[in-house]
Amino acid sequence: MTENGVMSRAKVLTIDTMNPTVKKVEYAVRGPIVQRAVELERELSEGMKKPFAEVIRANIGDAHAMGQQPITFFRQVLALCSYPELLSDNTFPEDAKSRACRILQSCGGNSLGAYSASQGIDSVRHDVARYIERRDGGVPCDPDDIYLTTGASDGIVTMLKLLVCGEGAGRTGVMISIPQYPLYSAALAELGAVQINYYLNEEKCWSLDISELQRALDEARRYCNPRALCIINPGNPTGQVQSRECIEDVIRFAAKERLFLMADEVYQDNVYADGCQFHSFKKVLFEMGPEYSETVELASFHSTSKCYMGECGFRGGYMEIINMDEEVKAQLTKLLSVRLCPPVPGQALMDLVVNPPRPGEPSYDSFIKERTATLSALAEKAKLTEQVLNTVQGISCNPVQGAMYSFPRITIPDKAINEATDQGQLPDMFYCMKMLEETGICLVPGSGFGQKDGTYHFRMTILPPRDKLKILLNKVKEFHQKFTQQYS
Amino acid sequence: MTENGVMSRAKVLTIDTMNPTVKKVEYAVRGPIVQRAVELERELSEGMKKPFAEVIRANIGDAHAMGQQPITFFRQVLALCSYPELLSDNTFPEDAKSRACRILQSCGGNSLGAYSASQGIDSVRHDVARYIERRDGGVPCDPDDIYLTTGASDGIVTMLKLLVCGEGAGRTGVMISIPQYPLYSAALAELGAVQINYYLNEEKCWSLDISELQRALDEARRYCNPRALCIINPGNPTGQVQSRECIEDVIRFAAKERLFLMADEVYQDNVYADGCQFHSFKKVLFEMGPEYSETVELASFHSTSKCYMGECGFRGGYMEIINMDEEVKAQLTKLLSVRLCPPVPGQALMDLVVNPPRPGEPSYDSFIKERTATLSALAEKAKLTEQVLNTVQGISCNPVQGAMYSFPRITIPDKAINEATDQGQLPDMFYCMKMLEETGICLVPGSGFGQKDGTYHFRMTILPPRDKLKILLNKVKEFHQKFTQQYS
Repeated sequence: MTENGVMSRAKVLTIDTMNPTVKKVEYAVRGPIVQRAVELERELSEGMKKPFAEVIRANIGDAHAMGQQPITFFRQVLALCSYPELLSDNTFPEDAKSRACRILQSCGGNSLGAYSASQGIDSVRHDVARYIERRDGGVPCDPDDIYLTTGASDGIVTMLKLLVCGEGAGRTGVMISIPQYPLYSAALAELGAVQINYYLNEEKCWSLDISELQRALDEARRYCNPRALCIINPGNPTGQVQSRECIEDVIRFAAKERLFLMADEVYQDNVYADGCQFHSFKKVLFEMGPEYSETVELASFHSTSKCYMGECGFRGGYMEIINMDEEVKAQLTKLLSVRLCPPVPGQALMDLVVNPPRPGEPSYDSFIKERTATLSALAEKAKLTEQVLNTVQGISCNPVQGAMYSFPRITIPDKAINEATDQGQLPDMFYCMKMLEETGICLVPGSGFGQKDGTYHFRMTILPPRDKLKILLNKVKEFHQKFTQQYS
Repeated sequence: MTENGVMSRAKVLTIDTMNPTVKKVEYAVRGPIVQRAVELERELSEGMKKPFAEVIRANIGDAHAMGQQPITFFRQVLALCSYPELLSDNTFPEDAKSRACRILQSCGGNSLGAYSASQGIDSVRHDVARYIERRDGGVPCDPDDIYLTTGASDGIVTMLKLLVCGEGAGRTGVMISIPQYPLYSAALAELGAVQINYYLNEEKCWSLDISELQRALDEARRYCNPRALCIINPGNPTGQVQSRECIEDVIRFAAKERLFLMADEVYQDNVYADGCQFHSFKKVLFEMGPEYSETVELASFHSTSKCYMGECGFRGGYMEIINMDEEVKAQLTKLLSVRLCPPVPGQALMDLVVNPPRPGEPSYDSFIKERTATLSALAEKAKLTEQVLNTVQGISCNPVQGAMYSFPRITIPDKAINEATDQGQLPDMFYCMKMLEETGICLVPGSGFGQKDGTYHFRMTILPPRDKLKILLNKVKEFHQKFTQQYS
């Protein structure tokens, strides 16, 4: 106590006495760059002078925030579900009404406000299973293998949580790509699991080499117990789309090395490049025959947040789990029950995504038109991004085959590297922070995703509207040229 | 490999190689009784003969599933936010439209489909702060202390996660009431923290005695590092409402013993008994003067799921955090950013709960009417439940002062206890399972919440509609009499 007897009581919870695993968590997509972007937006709104008129956020795959419009049919059904009085409103199409009725009939008390089963609403899980069967050319899917989630992140963290055990050299190791989406490294840090890095091959358009998987695994076996292999396809942050052959190789590798496969397939509709096609791990696994399809444990993840719908705010998602031990499955269901259920509006939205208007239904044409427009625009922007960035000396950019990002490699002059180091900053953070301050463009440094030592990158979404994206790309170009000149 | 070379590969993830802390998790509210209830419903729907026509679920505080209607205004605004085309529809009241516009304006791209800030939408956090100030008679609330959450459960688990550290006798211990809501025990098991039980005083209407807190703490200090004290007020599963004096005592105890306070106040509008009133921990803390208000660390939790709105499916909630170390707060924000944001529709709903129609606005009268009707019906059902249960010999039930549950004590004859034990079942599980099979009534055994050794209880919600509740209570009465006779 101080003399006045007040305020000197030491805090119970301090940085030194908090959970040490939480301290290790990092998540660059919403890190210091984004915090500074928020400050800059506030300063602009308060009339402060800046060398730019607006902050352009190309840091996160947040389609609606960048102006993408929601699918009309989805939102009509959600409005009807939210306020069922509207079912007597004649301005809504009949298929939207019947879809809303069907969803409400599977909710307790016919209300989105009731808890669902912890695994998710039965009818939604059935619709997901039928969607997967259609997508995978008839490969069967059991609704009991479907778990609805709070976005894909929730499913991924839950699966990792099940996998973690052991201590010391027996601790669970999980293989993740580098570059990676930092949800993985954050979850592994929080769970105290060992992160095993395998590097994607930038020279071959961010492809995955089995020899690199083997190298990473063999090294990791010396200090941990590798049990799972995570793949993001189409890739985040790297935008590649894996070939069918590569997926087969990965499955064979997982089978041989006894690894639980986790396939993050949230960008499954985001494939733009000619000759590229999305192949689900599930389909390839089943087409490889019973030696694989009856043994390899696989969890695959999908979400309402990406693809053509971009409905991030609803936090909808599902995971499909193949060949999981029945006792573990019961434990999974129990674990999920503690959080009661995923958000029901997100479940409803997931249902619409997997069961959209069908040919002949009143909303079919407008649905197809909206979906096609969004996906075509993304394809065009993917190309534009690659083209413009590759005109800049010191920037080299692989084709954006899929997903929503480009991850170009940037040359940072030694003088800039030294200045960054003097300031205790990573060179690509220094570069991105400078770009933000000078141009208002908010990107994420490659170090937030991982990259080969001595290489530098940034991740940039292709989501801004075409005209704004052009401005953004030109500003990046100008900035890079100026930066290079300044530090040469 | 077997001779045919297939299917014998051992699984990577088995019950023996999964995360051991997950195995320790238990959550009775959706445990075996509820799984059996689901089976019985299916059997009934398939035409199987049962001694009852329907399963009545009184196991979970799921108001809409039990027929409670949503607040019209809330659902109108949610429909408008989901499908903003409706803003030009003249059938919606003006205040619903203006509220929807205000929410959409604070969303990225004016869409519920954009991610929000990880801490929650700014304007919603401001509205929450103003709500707390009104509720607490002007005690100031800083929006920076408000974090929106995915239901209250998410906030509670996150706070516990921050608090856990140390090993062996230095491991974080957390004090929870017995009986408790099993989210707490489940989260502590998963986090590997030490659960410290303090017993509520059933003889004094489930009140909290400081001497019992002291006993529990002193014992626990021998084997762990007690750092937090959790209180549920109004109580779940026990339905008591704490006096102001008791809350002061708890705060003094937490200050003296250096415990982080966690106040679960999700039932803050659910107070029925004459002479009882809800006092927030925040308000009492601030009225105790700077010695407490400037030092005691407090997190309090609220939700859209309970009170008069009962909107469980939207998974909306908030926590207010007082006197938290600034560095820890930054760590909290970082941790939340990994999951991107709470569901935006749930945030919108939370905004409506804390900022409902005001006097003079078009929806005010109907809002008040609907809210009053729901709360009055609950008050009536609380009384009815207590009255009927107390007419049964062998059942004794404290007044349901608040929340949504009664937690009566039941006498189980020795013969039944022996039969249960022979079957490897806990006696109250045996009792509740038998009740379910014979009457279709789904309750949760007291053992799922914790109870003094040698005592038995069940938790029953008061949510079924009045007529159904009467039937339910009479069936419980008959069952108990029959059960007692059978085992005497």
